[in-house]
Amino acid sequence: MAGNSIGQLFKVTTFGESHGIALGCIVDGCPPGLPLTEEDIQKDLDLRKPGTSKYTTQRREPDQVKILSGVFEGKTTGTPIGLLIENVDQRSKDYSNIMDRFRPGHADYTYAHKYGFRDYRGGGRSSARETAMRVAAGAIARKFLATQGIAIKGYLSQLGPIKIEQFDWEQVRQNPFFCPDADKVAEMEQLIDDLRREGNSIGARISVRASGIQPGLGEPVFDRLDADLAHSLLSINAVKGVEIGDGFACVEQKGTEHRDEITPEGFLSNHGGGVLGGISSGQELIAHIALKPTSSMTTPGRSVNLEGEPVEIVTKGRHDPCVGIRAVPIAEAMMAITVMDHFMRHRAQNADVVSHAPLIAPSVSG
Amino acid sequence: MAGNSIGQLFKVTTFGESHGIALGCIVDGCPPGLPLTEEDIQKDLDLRKPGTSKYTTQRREPDQVKILSGVFEGKTTGTPIGLLIENVDQRSKDYSNIMDRFRPGHADYTYAHKYGFRDYRGGGRSSARETAMRVAAGAIARKFLATQGIAIKGYLSQLGPIKIEQFDWEQVRQNPFFCPDADKVAEMEQLIDDLRREGNSIGARISVRASGIQPGLGEPVFDRLDADLAHSLLSINAVKGVEIGDGFACVEQKGTEHRDEITPEGFLSNHGGGVLGGISSGQELIAHIALKPTSSMTTPGRSVNLEGEPVEIVTKGRHDPCVGIRAVPIAEAMMAITVMDHFMRHRAQNADVVSHAPLIAPSVSG
Amino acid sequence: MAGNSIGQLFKVTTFGESHGIALGCIVDGCPPGLPLTEEDIQKDLDLRKPGTSKYTTQRREPDQVKILSGVFEGKTTGTPIGLLIENVDQRSKDYSNIMDRFRPGHADYTYAHKYGFRDYRGGGRSSARETAMRVAAGAIARKFLATQGIAIKGYLSQLGPIKIEQFDWEQVRQNPFFCPDADKVAEMEQLIDDLRREGNSIGARISVRASGIQPGLGEPVFDRLDADLAHSLLSINAVKGVEIGDGFACVEQKGTEHRDEITPEGFLSNHGGGVLGGISSGQELIAHIALKPTSSMTTPGRSVNLEGEPVEIVTKGRHDPCVGIRAVPIAEAMMAITVMDHFMRHRAQNADVVSHAPLIAPSVSG
Amino acid sequence: MAGNSIGQLFKVTTFGESHGIALGCIVDGCPPGLPLTEEDIQKDLDLRKPGTSKYTTQRREPDQVKILSGVFEGKTTGTPIGLLIENVDQRSKDYSNIMDRFRPGHADYTYAHKYGFRDYRGGGRSSARETAMRVAAGAIARKFLATQGIAIKGYLSQLGPIKIEQFDWEQVRQNPFFCPDADKVAEMEQLIDDLRREGNSIGARISVRASGIQPGLGEPVFDRLDADLAHSLLSINAVKGVEIGDGFACVEQKGTEHRDEITPEGFLSNHGGGVLGGISSGQELIAHIALKPTSSMTTPGRSVNLEGEPVEIVTKGRHDPCVGIRAVPIAEAMMAITVMDHFMRHRAQNADVVSHAPLIAPSVSG
Repeated sequence: MAGNSIGQLFKVTTFGESHGIALGCIVDGCPPGLPLTEEDIQKDLDLRKPGTSKYTTQRREPDQVKILSGVFEGKTTGTPIGLLIENVDQRSKDYSNIMDRFRPGHADYTYAHKYGFRDYRGGGRSSARETAMRVAAGAIARKFLATQGIAIKGYLSQLGPIKIEQFDWEQVRQNPFFCPDADKVAEMEQLIDDLRREGNSIGARISVRASGIQPGLGEPVFDRLDADLAHSLLSINAVKGVEIGDGFACVEQKGTEHRDEITPEGFLSNHGGGVLGGISSGQELIAHIALKPTSSMTTPGRSVNLEGEPVEIVTKGRHDPCVGIRAVPIAEAMMAITVMDHFMRHRAQNADVVSHAPLIAPSVSG
Repeated sequence: MAGNSIGQLFKVTTFGESHGIALGCIVDGCPPGLPLTEEDIQKDLDLRKPGTSKYTTQRREPDQVKILSGVFEGKTTGTPIGLLIENVDQRSKDYSNIMDRFRPGHADYTYAHKYGFRDYRGGGRSSARETAMRVAAGAIARKFLATQGIAIKGYLSQLGPIKIEQFDWEQVRQNPFFCPDADKVAEMEQLIDDLRREGNSIGARISVRASGIQPGLGEPVFDRLDADLAHSLLSINAVKGVEIGDGFACVEQKGTEHRDEITPEGFLSNHGGGVLGGISSGQELIAHIALKPTSSMTTPGRSVNLEGEPVEIVTKGRHDPCVGIRAVPIAEAMMAITVMDHFMRHRAQNADVVSHAPLIAPSVSG
Repeated sequence: MAGNSIGQLFKVTTFGESHGIALGCIVDGCPPGLPLTEEDIQKDLDLRKPGTSKYTTQRREPDQVKILSGVFEGKTTGTPIGLLIENVDQRSKDYSNIMDRFRPGHADYTYAHKYGFRDYRGGGRSSARETAMRVAAGAIARKFLATQGIAIKGYLSQLGPIKIEQFDWEQVRQNPFFCPDADKVAEMEQLIDDLRREGNSIGARISVRASGIQPGLGEPVFDRLDADLAHSLLSINAVKGVEIGDGFACVEQKGTEHRDEITPEGFLSNHGGGVLGGISSGQELIAHIALKPTSSMTTPGRSVNLEGEPVEIVTKGRHDPCVGIRAVPIAEAMMAITVMDHFMRHRAQNADVVSHAPLIAPSVSG
Repeated sequence: MAGNSIGQLFKVTTFGESHGIALGCIVDGCPPGLPLTEEDIQKDLDLRKPGTSKYTTQRREPDQVKILSGVFEGKTTGTPIGLLIENVDQRSKDYSNIMDRFRPGHADYTYAHKYGFRDYRGGGRSSARETAMRVAAGAIARKFLATQGIAIKGYLSQLGPIKIEQFDWEQVRQNPFFCPDADKVAEMEQLIDDLRREGNSIGARISVRASGIQPGLGEPVFDRLDADLAHSLLSINAVKGVEIGDGFACVEQKGTEHRDEITPEGFLSNHGGGVLGGISSGQELIAHIALKPTSSMTTPGRSVNLEGEPVEIVTKGRHDPCVGIRAVPIAEAMMAITVMDHFMRHRAQNADVVSHAPLIAPSVSG
C-alpha cells in the first residue's frame, strides 16, 4: 500500500526511480511566507551529490532541482511545493547480468516477491538515488526551522574501524568524509583506497544533532519525537540501527549515571539525547545511525537467478565503497523533516499553553 | 496533536494513566472470524504483570482485561475491539514530594512544558503502566499471525554487564528474566539484589524475532518494515536504541562479510535481520533494543521545583530496578502489531501478484 | 480496514455495538487546560437520549457517560480522553426472527457479505446507538470551540412533507422535534402518531449552523472544510444527502444571484454557506442533511434468508418512526468535531500568518 | 496543514497552480502489473479539456500528461506513479485589476486570510485547473477497476432549469454537455449562448454511477463508502451538495416506499443508491452533485480591495458560463478514486472472508 509519504503536518511524498525520467516530490503543509529559492535547496543537494571526490561514486548526476509550484514572488504560499530533478545520466546500459538474478544485500529478491517483477535498472525505486528528494524536502524544513532558531548538523562519527577522537564542527565541511577530526582524514582516504582495490566496502556511523528546540515537541505515546525520528532515520537506505543519546551504551549504565540531573543552571548532562518520555527537553537532540557496507562491489558473490539456479554475481559500475560517507546530508534532512513535523504538531494542540515550568538552560556539552 | 495510535490497517489506539480509573484501547481493523477470548489476551498480560517475582516491582496490578466489543459468539466481527483494564491499586498516595518538582530522567519536566501542567500521580500518561494495553493489542495480532504461521518470540540478551552466552528458547519462560541462558540467572538475581540494596538501577538489551514471515512485507520508501518496526519499538518507554539484524556491528563489517549470499538451499546467513530494502526476505525478522536504567530509585538526585529552585529528589515506592526485565512481552507485542499491519498492507496492494521469483529457504541460523 | 476514527488532529475513535457490553470512544488531541466534567458531556447526551417523549423510541437507555482518562483536577491534560457508556438495557431478546434473514433498508445484508457473518443483536455496530459516542466527543469539541467564540446549533427544517415557515431559535429546545416553528409542532405530532398507527416511518431534513468561525479554516484541495463536513455528516446513520449553503438550489441559480457580494459593511448574502474555495469566509457555516425514513417498521416487507429463500420481515420493537428527530444533537456534534479539527489544522500551519486582508463583517442573515 | 492528498491505500497527492510552471500528482499504492500508457490517461484528460466546444472556455490547454515513474515495460511496478502536465498557456497577463481585490464567489478572500497573501494569477491553487490531475489519477483507478468488472459513468442530469427527460447512455459522449437526452441539447446550447451574451452563468446537476461493485466495500462507521464519496465529490471546485441514491427526496418518502425490498431475483428498487449502512450492496452505486454557477462573469459585482474600500469587479477572460459542463469527467474520476481505495481497503481486512450470505442480483433499474 501507499508508503512513500512521511510526516503528518509537514508531509513529504516522493516518487522516481534510479534510471527513470525524473525524481520528484511534493512538500505539503509548509507554512506560508517563507522565502524560498531553488538555490536554497540546491546547496543541500550539492552536498549529497555523487562524484564530488574520488572517495564516492563517479556517476555524474547534476541533480538540478526545479520548484514547480507553491512559491510565488519568492515566498512559499502555503500550498503544496512540487519539486523535480530530471535524470540526465541514464545512459543506456546493459542490464543482462542483473535483470534475471538477485544481487545479495540488495532489494532485488524482495521487490520481485512483493510485486511479481521489478524495475531492474540500477535498483529502480530501491536505489539510494531516491534520497535526493529527501535532501530537497529537508532543505525546506531546515530553512523554516532556522527562522525558529533550530539548527541541524551531522557528521561522520566512525568509518569502519576508524573512530573520531577529536571534534571540530569547522572540519566537517572541509573534507569529503564529513569528518570532524582532521587527523583521521588521511587514514580514511587510505581505507577507501584499499577497499576499492580489493573490491570491497565498509560500514559507517553517522551522528546528527539539532540545537535550539524548545521543550515540548513530541506526542505521547506512539508518536514520540524519538520514535518518529527512529522511523525517519531507519527509512534511509542501508541504515541498520538508530540510537537516541547514549543509545546502546545505556545497557551497561546504572541509573545514577544515566539520569540527567537538573539544576537551575541547566541539565548536568545529556545522556538522554534531548528527549524525556518521548518529548523534547530543550537540550540538543542527538541521534546516531549505523549504515551497512555497500552491497554493490566487484568481489563476486553467490546468488540465484529467476529460475532458482545458482549464479555468481559481480556488480560492476560506479559505486561508493561506503554509502555512509554521503549519508550525512540525508540524515540531516530526515531529522529536519521530523523536527519540523513535530514543531507543527505541537503548536496545533498547544498553541494556548502557558507553561508554568521553569525554563532550564540546556547543558553545555549537548 | 493526536499521537496515541499506531498502525494503518491494524490500528491500535490507547488511553489511560498510571493512577487513573482505567486503561483502555481500541483495536480497529482486525480481520473478522478470528476466535478470541479474554483468556487469549490475559495470558500475555500475565507475563508482563508486575509483582510476579521479587526481581520486579511489588505493585499488585491484577490487570484483568475485559473485551467490551468486536467479538460475537467467540469470534471477532471485523468491527473495533474495545479493551478495558480497571485500575484497582490506586491507593491514595501522598504526592506532595513530587507534584511540584521534576524527577530526573522522567517525563515530568517535558510534560509540564508541553501541556502547561501534568497529572503527577505515578507519572500519569508517561508511566510504563500504559504498556499493558500494548500487550493486550499485541496478543490479538499474535493470535491472527499464528493462523498465518508467523510466531514472535523475545528474550533478554543482556542485563547490565551480563551477556548471555548460551541460547535455549525453552529457558526463556522458566525464569523471571526471560533469559535464554540458565547459567546466567543466578548472576542476574545477584545483580538485581545488589542494585536494590544500593538504591540504584541498570539497563538491559532485549531481542525479538519473528519467524514464518513470507517475502514481500514492507513498503518503499518511508514505511519500510524495518523503519516502522524501529518506530514501534522505540515508542516503548525507556528504549534508547534499535537494531535490525547486525545493527551497529555493521559499522565495522566489510561488504563481503555483511551481504547475505543466496543459494538454492537458502540464504547463507542473516546479517540483514530479515529485511532487504525495507521489505521482508522470508528469513527471521530480528531486532534488538536498548533500555535505559529505571529513573526511579532511592539514591537522591538533584533537580529543580516549579519555582526553578534547586531540590533533592528521592523516589520512594515499588519500582523495578530494571525496566528491561518486563519489557520482553512488550517488545513482542509491538513487533506483532507492526508485522500484522504490514501483513494487511501488503495484501491490500498485492493480493493479485503472482510472484515469478524463486522461494528461497530461510537460513537455519536465523 | 480500520475506519472507526474521524479527524486528523482532534481524532475521535469509537467502539461498541447496540447490544454489547458498552460503547466507548477515545478523543485524542484535545488541547490541555480545558475545564471538563462528565456533566458537560451528559447534557448533550441527554438531548439525544431516546425515550424522552412519546415521539421517539421508548427504549430506556440512561446513557450515563464516564470519563476514564485525560482529565486531571477538572481540566483536560492533553492526553487521550477515554469515555465509556455501559449498556444497561440489554434485555435478553429473541432474535430468531432476524438472525437468519436480512432486514430491507438495514446493513444486515452488507455486513454479512463484508465480514462473512454478523452480530445480529439489534443491528450490532450498524445501530444508530453508536452515535451516542459521537455526541459525547462532540460535546468536548463544543466546549473548546465556545472558548474561541464558536457556537454550533441545529434544528429540524422539515419532517416528511412539513416544512418550517417561521424561525425562532428559542423554540428549538422547547419541543421534542427540535423544531424552530412552534406552529408546526402539533402537525408534526399528528404525523408521527399516524405513522406509528399505520406501521410506517418518514424522512427528515436537519440544518446545522456554526457562528463565530474566523476566515481561513479548511485546506486546499481535498481536505476542504466543506468536503470534510460532508464526510462527517454523511457518516451519520440514515443520512442520504448533504448541502452546503444553498446546496441543490444552486443548480437553477444564476451567477449574479449566487455570488455573495462584498461591501465594507459585510457580505450582502450567504448563498455559499460560509465557505469559499473550501475555506471558511467568516460567515455562518451552514449545512443541511437529508435522513431517510426509519427502515424498522411493523409493515411487513419482502426479503430473503441466509439460504436465499424468500421471507417476510416485520420489525417489532421500540423504534423511532423518524430517525431524523433525534439527529439534531448528532449533526451538531459532527459539525463540532469537524470545525474543531480544522481549527487545529489551521493553526498548525498558519500560526505565524499576519493577514493583510480586511476583516469583513459576516452577513446579518447568515 | 497538508490537505492535498486523498485516499488511504490508493493515495493521490496533487500540486500546481493555474498559471504556474506545471501541475503534477503522485499516485501511490497502485497495484503492480497493471498495463498503463500515457494514452490511457490522455483520453480521459481530453474529455475534460477546455476549448473543445464553443460552450466551454476558449483557453487552449493541451494538458499533455507525462508519466515520470512507476511504470516499467508498460506495466505499473507498484511504486509511486509520478504524473506531470506542463502549463503552456501562461500568457503574461495583466493582473492589476484583481491582485489587490477579492472576486465575489471566489477563494480570493479566504486564501488571503488563511495564508496572509495569495497567488492571484488565475486563482492560483484554487483554480479549477487543478482538477486536471484528479482526472489523470482517476484514469489509473478506472483502468484497474475495469479489470475487476467495475465501470464508472457520469452525465449531466440538469443544466439550470433544464432537466433531462429521456435517458440514453449512448448520447452522453455525443454532445458537449454530456447530456443523455438528445432532445435537450438544442435548448442547452441556447441557454449557454444567452448567458454568455448577458454576462452571466448558471448551475448544474451531475450524476455518476458505478456498476459491478461487489457487496462489502466501505468501512463502519466513519469511513463509509458513501461518506468517503461525499468527501471526494464535494472536494471538487464549485460543488455545493451531494446526494446518494434518492438523496433529499428521502425527506418526504415513507419507509415502505424507500426501503429496497429483496427477493431471490434481486433488489426490487435502488432508492439507497447502492449502499446500506455505508457498505456497498452490489447494486449500482449512484450519486448526484450540485455545482454552483461560475463566479467569473462579465456582469460587474461589488467587492472590497486590500484596503477594505468598496470596488467594482468585472472578470474578463475566457470562462465557462457553466462549470458543471466539464465536471462530468472530474466526478467520474473522483468516484473511481474512492471506489478504488475502498476496493483495496476491503481486501486488506477481509481477504480471507468466506461469505455465507446469498448473492442477490442487482436490481435492473439501477
